[in-house]
Amino acid sequence: MNAPAFPQGLPQSVTTGPITGSAKVYAAPKDRPDLRVPYRSIALTDPGEAPVRVYDPSGPYTEGQARIDLAAGLAQIRAGWIEGRGYPAVAPRLVRPEDNGFAAEDRLVAPCPAERIVRRGEPGRMVTQLEFARAGIVTDEMIYVAHRENLCREAMLAGAEAGIADGESFGAAIPPVITPDFVREEVARGRAIIPANINHTELEPMAIGRNFLVKINANIGNSAVTSSAADEVEKMVWAIRWGADTVMDLSTGRNIHNIRGWILRNAPVPIGTVPIYQALEKVGGDPLKLDWEVFKDTLIEQAEQGVDYFTIHAGVRLAHVPLTARRVTGIVSRGGSIMARWCLAGHRESFLYERFDEICDICRAYDVSFSLGDGLRPGSIADANDAAQFAELETLGELTRIAWDKGCQVMIEGPGHVPMHKIKVNMEKQLAECGEAPFYTLGPLTTDVAPGYDHITSGIGAAMIGWYGTAMLCYVTPKEHLGLPNRDDVKTGVITYKIAAHAADLAKGHPAAQLRDDALSRARFDFRWEDQFNLSLDPDTARAYHDETLPKDAHKVAHFCSMCGPKFCSMKITQDLRADVLAMEAAGRVVAEATPLSEAEREAGMAQKSAEFLGEGGRLYVEPGE
Amino acid sequence: MNAPAFPQGLPQSVTTGPITGSAKVYAAPKDRPDLRVPYRSIALTDPGEAPVRVYDPSGPYTEGQARIDLAAGLAQIRAGWIEGRGYPAVAPRLVRPEDNGFAAEDRLVAPCPAERIVRRGEPGRMVTQLEFARAGIVTDEMIYVAHRENLCREAMLAGAEAGIADGESFGAAIPPVITPDFVREEVARGRAIIPANINHTELEPMAIGRNFLVKINANIGNSAVTSSAADEVEKMVWAIRWGADTVMDLSTGRNIHNIRGWILRNAPVPIGTVPIYQALEKVGGDPLKLDWEVFKDTLIEQAEQGVDYFTIHAGVRLAHVPLTARRVTGIVSRGGSIMARWCLAGHRESFLYERFDEICDICRAYDVSFSLGDGLRPGSIADANDAAQFAELETLGELTRIAWDKGCQVMIEGPGHVPMHKIKVNMEKQLAECGEAPFYTLGPLTTDVAPGYDHITSGIGAAMIGWYGTAMLCYVTPKEHLGLPNRDDVKTGVITYKIAAHAADLAKGHPAAQLRDDALSRARFDFRWEDQFNLSLDPDTARAYHDETLPKDAHKVAHFCSMCGPKFCSMKITQDLRADVLAMEAAGRVVAEATPLSEAEREAGMAQKSAEFLGEGGRLYVEPGE
Repeated sequence: MNAPAFPQGLPQSVTTGPITGSAKVYAAPKDRPDLRVPYRSIALTDPGEAPVRVYDPSGPYTEGQARIDLAAGLAQIRAGWIEGRGYPAVAPRLVRPEDNGFAAEDRLVAPCPAERIVRRGEPGRMVTQLEFARAGIVTDEMIYVAHRENLCREAMLAGAEAGIADGESFGAAIPPVITPDFVREEVARGRAIIPANINHTELEPMAIGRNFLVKINANIGNSAVTSSAADEVEKMVWAIRWGADTVMDLSTGRNIHNIRGWILRNAPVPIGTVPIYQALEKVGGDPLKLDWEVFKDTLIEQAEQGVDYFTIHAGVRLAHVPLTARRVTGIVSRGGSIMARWCLAGHRESFLYERFDEICDICRAYDVSFSLGDGLRPGSIADANDAAQFAELETLGELTRIAWDKGCQVMIEGPGHVPMHKIKVNMEKQLAECGEAPFYTLGPLTTDVAPGYDHITSGIGAAMIGWYGTAMLCYVTPKEHLGLPNRDDVKTGVITYKIAAHAADLAKGHPAAQLRDDALSRARFDFRWEDQFNLSLDPDTARAYHDETLPKDAHKVAHFCSMCGPKFCSMKITQDLRADVLAMEAAGRVVAEATPLSEAEREAGMAQKSAEFLGEGGRLYVEPGE
Repeated sequence: MNAPAFPQGLPQSVTTGPITGSAKVYAAPKDRPDLRVPYRSIALTDPGEAPVRVYDPSGPYTEGQARIDLAAGLAQIRAGWIEGRGYPAVAPRLVRPEDNGFAAEDRLVAPCPAERIVRRGEPGRMVTQLEFARAGIVTDEMIYVAHRENLCREAMLAGAEAGIADGESFGAAIPPVITPDFVREEVARGRAIIPANINHTELEPMAIGRNFLVKINANIGNSAVTSSAADEVEKMVWAIRWGADTVMDLSTGRNIHNIRGWILRNAPVPIGTVPIYQALEKVGGDPLKLDWEVFKDTLIEQAEQGVDYFTIHAGVRLAHVPLTARRVTGIVSRGGSIMARWCLAGHRESFLYERFDEICDICRAYDVSFSLGDGLRPGSIADANDAAQFAELETLGELTRIAWDKGCQVMIEGPGHVPMHKIKVNMEKQLAECGEAPFYTLGPLTTDVAPGYDHITSGIGAAMIGWYGTAMLCYVTPKEHLGLPNRDDVKTGVITYKIAAHAADLAKGHPAAQLRDDALSRARFDFRWEDQFNLSLDPDTARAYHDETLPKDAHKVAHFCSMCGPKFCSMKITQDLRADVLAMEAAGRVVAEATPLSEAEREAGMAQKSAEFLGEGGRLYVEPGE
């Protein structure tokens, strides 16, 4: 017998340390000093500029002195909260060979040794965030989320220009400040979810809903040849480092149970899965051998591990299958095609649809949120918004109501490939059919003609649908349709989707979104290059691009840049202009009419204006409240 | 004396040869067999699939056996047309040392030896496309443009599904087929321009207007150390290879006159410039030394060389300057800041504004189109749609009418940095103020927070404003704000903007745009990997990405892909499904109700359906008309 591929004494191969120019900070809401809500703080070189605090899903990995022990897992920040709710510990389901795809012993990744109590909520006791919310109870998770979403907004806004937000929200209602009770109300109405399995005690809670910051999801999957669990955990760590708010583990084949364990024990973000993938593995890959028992077993297996949301393709009904037959690209969802095959081959209704009540009971017992899958999403521009897609969406609306009645949290998956003029109706129809449950879309891709650039074809659609009200955007990498994303592709996909989400927040009129744009633009105008880099979504790339042309350190404080050089620099010319205009105004001159100032008048005026300008508070240092 | 840096016997260092998988084809409209209108034709491996013909601005460089002689310049396809109009040859203005930035003899790039007759239209004779159009005369350029825009659409559409276009055009009126007289009408109304200096005889004419395909522009500029003219020409060749419809030469400093000559003699696309840059060089870089004489001299110099459009920042008036003083990023346009400085320092109205009549007279004499510059465009989200920007836009509307009265073709430049919710009003206001003259925008960037990814932040805005009606999109590369773009950056910028332009065409309901999407999606669904690569905007990247994961040639015909593997392939499952559904329908079964087919029934039904499907003509080979 060979030694296991996964040795004792795990190598610390995940990426740790702060993002360049940023520091991890934790802050607590008033009255809850025990909570440590994470942010990333970007300090600026101008003493008149407040540090900019940004939302940070990256977990403890980006702490200055991150001490990560993958075998022990992250600190269980929710353990006390969950324990306080009194759910009984249960004997976990025993791991079986098929859970790991029948991996041979010499290929088996060892299970994560981190020990955790597995719990399950009994019938009659409140378990889900939705149940608490409806009962008027503000959970720890809600308090945490409220503080996290605010980014200490009150203190920051107090020092900034008032009323900078002027978006078009299409019916979203983002309050100036998020309170814990606002979170509770949104969850109670089903308009937001907090995906938070009671067995995922390491989770830093977050919310998905259109009255919160737009979130993004990154997909990861196991490699065909798994070298180590650390390599698999690293995929998640890398994605959240750049801003992924949730991660879906789409692994198939061998070792998926054990790898999922490693990921969950080390995940500060919600982890989603598509349980049908593992169920299919358990029956040897033949969709026709799937049945309720193997699926139910898989749900329980994953729920006990702590998976926070399940994609369930219960909207793919037998009657919908013929609607796809004349499509240009048929069914492009894996789960959708599996279920369609199952339905059609046996000429029977989907067991996911027929057993949806029972699925809800399982999900409720652990507070696994639903991500109702769009198994019939369009895979091409030609198929966008067709009868199959909308028939499924109507079914998802029906299932949403069932899940809500059962106390379960729900979000709805959406397309896909959709040209720009057909995007908005997707959002409107989703809101109408699904009672404002959060929408979670893949892109959409706005054209089919650019494989290799589908992060961009889809980033366009993602920004737009995010603006219209989509709560979470599932990233697309440059390798979409072509191959498996590597490390660079994952980063490119995440950054592209952070752009889309942020552009959406700005356009919706999120009251704090523009603070970062303004801080970066002031840095740009002031030639504070380091600040410009550090405020960007990807400081390393911004700095590297700058250094390709002007590598000397001296140029990072130069009052010009490589594009125009010192003579042609519009920013430099404008700074002089600004001084002149302000000086003239101070001297009471009307610029378009008066004669030029004398040198003495100019200097006097500038001094006065300068004092006024600083006095207005625009650049005064404001330390965000802790 | 040293040998000149630019040797006799120019090295052929520009990129030639077809785009992978494509062939250059030329076609002529009926009755004009002398015209050779260029296209790119993508042949597909499925004999049932017609080759896909796409718009192609890349010139003779992408011919199969391209024979390029930079010193001789491209063939003068317009020489006969222009000669037939009877404009007198004029003795060109003599080149002076300041035209090349006082380059020392040993640094001087030799002038392009290609000999051309320089012409100038006299007063009283029609010169511009606008003048001809108003007089009811359909020019050769208009006939060429009509055929080019159609892409032989009639023949292609005849073989494809009818009525695939269903966009929202926001008032654009794209006809099913473009006729020469439609082009003439659009030009006559000022709603489209054909930038075509009578001295740019090598030009392959093209149109910019919202009832035509959305176009893109790439900016290029000389390197600080010019190694050879071929290197400078290559920047243009590279940009048009990937799809740039026009190229702006933003060079400054040394050798700009001579390099511009090399570029123009070898440019099949319209070349735009910003004459104030060269004028500033001529006065030693001090904006305060600019005057009408040096500017006028520069206009004539460049018009004689054949520049097709001039960016003129005549909308930056003295009274607008104070409106920028409190902006976050002031004036970010180089030309705008130069003129603002000039105005404010001398407390005088812009000479561009005051002499606009005379500028029009010069432009008319050569048919140089105006690109009325947005010198006060916003450089940050905070400054979007502010008083300065819109004051200038109103002035541009006033100037548009003056230019039209003078017989000049006009387009209008637009922003810049604009959050999504403020984009549409830009388009609406431009249409209203400028009488539907074509809009030509830079992006807009939809957030400031992603330097290093501004091709994406701006690609989002570009797609949207293109949809709303912008006629040409000026590209942004990943190096924007950070440094000078290299070859890869230029390609990335061009491809990103081709995506934006195509997404806009789709959303507007362009009657032929979706043909390429559909062909690619069918190839994807049929696992015709080579066809999928070749139909993409960048076949090389698509192929390379695929090969990273599945490098073996055999996999290029595999009926699955690397993302899911054979077992999980939704496309594979769906192909089986489709066969089943079609077979059941053929057997008269209602899928949602009936019992499964027997194997014999299934086979009989499939054969029948298959025959029907092919008989519908969807996949029949149709050779586009020549």
